[in-house]
Amino acid sequence: MNVSGPSRAKRGIPPKSEFNKWYPAIVEIADLVDKRYPIKGMDVWKPYGLTAMGLIDSLARREMSRTGHHEYRFPLLVPEDLLDKENKLVSILKAARESGVDPSELRFDEEASGFKKEVYWVTHGGENKLEMPMFLRPTSETPMYTMFSLWVRSHADLPLKTFQIVNTFRYETKQTRSFIRVREIHFFEAHTVHADQTGADEQIEEDAEMVQRIMHDLCLPSLVSKRPVWDTFPGAWYTKAADVVMPNGRTLQVATYHHYKDQWANAFDLSYEDPEGNTKPCHQTTFGMSERLLGAVVGMHGDDKGLILPPAIAPIQVVVMPIAAHADSNVEPAARALAERLSASGIRVELDTRDVRPGVKHYDWEIKGVPIRIELGPRDLSAGKFILTLRTGSKSEISIDEAEVLESLEGLAEDLRQRAKSLVSDKVQPFPFDNLDYDASQESSIESGIVYQIAFEGNDSDAEFLEKKTGLTLLGECDDEFPEERNCLITGKATKKKQHIARMY
Amino acid sequence: MNVSGPSRAKRGIPPKSEFNKWYPAIVEIADLVDKRYPIKGMDVWKPYGLTAMGLIDSLARREMSRTGHHEYRFPLLVPEDLLDKENKLVSILKAARESGVDPSELRFDEEASGFKKEVYWVTHGGENKLEMPMFLRPTSETPMYTMFSLWVRSHADLPLKTFQIVNTFRYETKQTRSFIRVREIHFFEAHTVHADQTGADEQIEEDAEMVQRIMHDLCLPSLVSKRPVWDTFPGAWYTKAADVVMPNGRTLQVATYHHYKDQWANAFDLSYEDPEGNTKPCHQTTFGMSERLLGAVVGMHGDDKGLILPPAIAPIQVVVMPIAAHADSNVEPAARALAERLSASGIRVELDTRDVRPGVKHYDWEIKGVPIRIELGPRDLSAGKFILTLRTGSKSEISIDEAEVLESLEGLAEDLRQRAKSLVSDKVQPFPFDNLDYDASQESSIESGIVYQIAFEGNDSDAEFLEKKTGLTLLGECDDEFPEERNCLITGKATKKKQHIARMY
Repeated sequence: MNVSGPSRAKRGIPPKSEFNKWYPAIVEIADLVDKRYPIKGMDVWKPYGLTAMGLIDSLARREMSRTGHHEYRFPLLVPEDLLDKENKLVSILKAARESGVDPSELRFDEEASGFKKEVYWVTHGGENKLEMPMFLRPTSETPMYTMFSLWVRSHADLPLKTFQIVNTFRYETKQTRSFIRVREIHFFEAHTVHADQTGADEQIEEDAEMVQRIMHDLCLPSLVSKRPVWDTFPGAWYTKAADVVMPNGRTLQVATYHHYKDQWANAFDLSYEDPEGNTKPCHQTTFGMSERLLGAVVGMHGDDKGLILPPAIAPIQVVVMPIAAHADSNVEPAARALAERLSASGIRVELDTRDVRPGVKHYDWEIKGVPIRIELGPRDLSAGKFILTLRTGSKSEISIDEAEVLESLEGLAEDLRQRAKSLVSDKVQPFPFDNLDYDASQESSIESGIVYQIAFEGNDSDAEFLEKKTGLTLLGECDDEFPEERNCLITGKATKKKQHIARMY
Repeated sequence: MNVSGPSRAKRGIPPKSEFNKWYPAIVEIADLVDKRYPIKGMDVWKPYGLTAMGLIDSLARREMSRTGHHEYRFPLLVPEDLLDKENKLVSILKAARESGVDPSELRFDEEASGFKKEVYWVTHGGENKLEMPMFLRPTSETPMYTMFSLWVRSHADLPLKTFQIVNTFRYETKQTRSFIRVREIHFFEAHTVHADQTGADEQIEEDAEMVQRIMHDLCLPSLVSKRPVWDTFPGAWYTKAADVVMPNGRTLQVATYHHYKDQWANAFDLSYEDPEGNTKPCHQTTFGMSERLLGAVVGMHGDDKGLILPPAIAPIQVVVMPIAAHADSNVEPAARALAERLSASGIRVELDTRDVRPGVKHYDWEIKGVPIRIELGPRDLSAGKFILTLRTGSKSEISIDEAEVLESLEGLAEDLRQRAKSLVSDKVQPFPFDNLDYDASQESSIESGIVYQIAFEGNDSDAEFLEKKTGLTLLGECDDEFPEERNCLITGKATKKKQHIARMY
């Protein structure tokens, strides 16, 4: 791994307490991306960032393989006419929701243009105007379900469990931020087709479990909520999301899973023949994640010195540094042997033999968030003991033993989980008032960097009033409830329903 | 790996002798891609095809890692104004070539529109017309070199050795063919920057070696030629290419590497400060491959029964089939144990316990080109010997021994290399005439499915005449020469220079 450039002191990392300055600086200083590409929101992935993202992809692939999903790759470009089905579906569901009708009772006969506003359009091939404009996929329901309706014929074809990891695009008009709000997105999407609602229900459970397994490896606690109906993915019956609380108190949606029931299937003529020969509509789910996972890792774990990467996705897990190698010719070979031994036991290791002061090396690897540093000098060599330093601070003496290093990596991961948990418990607080009847002079009690936990069982207009009054966004109903009843912040009714309100990214 | 659908008999694979029907049929029947996506030339990669392609990517990554290249990922979209430098470069070089001037002597002050005709244009974001149109990368010189000029400052930054594996796009107006001529391309591209021409020369040597190592793993012989000047990549000093002779006698370009000298660097202000403080232009190379490698593998090795995949890229290297498992309850556990043992030694293995006749299983795995089939029935179990069948035909009896299986895989690869070599030596023949003075009645001696080897030392207009008269395309100068002098097919002059003429894909 090539490390170059000036040391941290010269690189000017802002303190992490100034998170909104620290984050955009560190993604470049740690060499994850280069933002100078001439289109905003389309960063260049540098090798270090790409490798970390690739390791996150590996976690997703591991879960997909464990649960019997298969990897596909669908085309990037989608002809405009395929959007018609999608738009009809979205508009009809929207109308249904607004009028309180169960959408699954309705037919699709209306057109909306929601998607058209968010996508990039390809209109020309060379100097020819295309007969049919095409758009760059924002997600792949449309291209996938077009094919699924060719693939699914009988109950024997179900369940169909697919995923892909691809570039997707959004015509983003808000301010862009590396990994968090970009225009070319490194995207993971799983799409499944089931014979009935129970199959889809079980898939949603499986998705929830996969998200938690991945979040465990990333050492990220999250709030899981069922999004309010107006924040449900277009065409979905309901949407669940995992949000990470960032150090500035804003929440970052990093994973969503959607239960489509048979709504999309009806729009795309996706049906199957059951064992009795009856034609039945399929039920579907999707599950999406993106490079936001890396953004959450960067934002949650880093400190004033740079990144701290969870071992599961650290491109380099251990850096081995020979010390005073010029004074003792045994040092470098011993360091190399140690690096090779660690590497043979599956640890991602880097031997840093650069001819620079140890302080410079420390700075460089701290910025990059390498979990473990092992220093090895003439005295250590004769003692057969070496200093192992965790990126989170603690030092210990070890013998050359792979098991001890693996244990230290797990120890660091557990450190990160505890630190993150404690940050979240600082940032998530009870709402300071029992109801919304506070006046303007009391508003200062509502802090901008805090996620508020509330009891809420109101309807859509209650929610609208809540968001307007607080200036915060409702994340949706939590999976867990309060242990005992409380009064709803708006209606005052007794309820165990827990929700959070926050500033969302 | 999920295998479904009717057996081969019902699937209707045309005989391989009818190659132009066999190829488009087999890519779908073997479940590599689905061509029914509503944009021609943009196929859906199915899991089996994507896995095989991923294994080809792994070979490329192995070579890149071995030679110190680092993986990046650049944005897909390129703003139109970046194209200006590229077009100027291309037009000036073209003009220079036509007038016989050394292009490196010239300045760039002219505009061409060559690239514009071959790319897809994004003109709108949502309903807004973009201020600056953007195109989908056909290759990445323009986006990459824009960034390289920010990254390269001093001699210490060189050599810069980069690569990426991404989707690229070409507005293709010719008939599309899976893997061979597509509009969304799975593309590998390496780009390097050097301090001087020697550095770039050495890189070209390294590229040549990497291509040969990959072709060895794919069991593909190739013709390596230095392309004629009019077939040189735009902006390159020269282009070398590896072509695979397909069974229909057409050649398929599967890898190219280009020496740019300092031509692109001058257009992109890509220079560095040498140790003496002088500003010097960089020298560059590129090296490209694509999903055409998979197309060549499919076309070269397959037979009437289906694919035959080289072990290096076979998603399943060995299929283990329990036989008459219902008659002996020890069979299936023994088959499973064997599969697990092979898998533990790094072999990609599939246990086929489907309750269908062995003949159906044979058909299915033959279509998919799995290199080795191991059958294991009650009698084999008691004898401790099992039948191992190579996809190329031969059977042998083995004991349960991973080493024997690994040896058989290598044996099959060697089979494939020999068969491919013999096909090429059938298809590559001396030109039937000593010069081009043959008349129309003799033209039938020139067969359409043959690649002709010729002695050629003519100039551009000789080459043009040659191509016109024969209807074939000159692949360019071979790396190797004839052992003794022959007469040039056009000029009659004595020369050792060897070339091929062929119908190219």
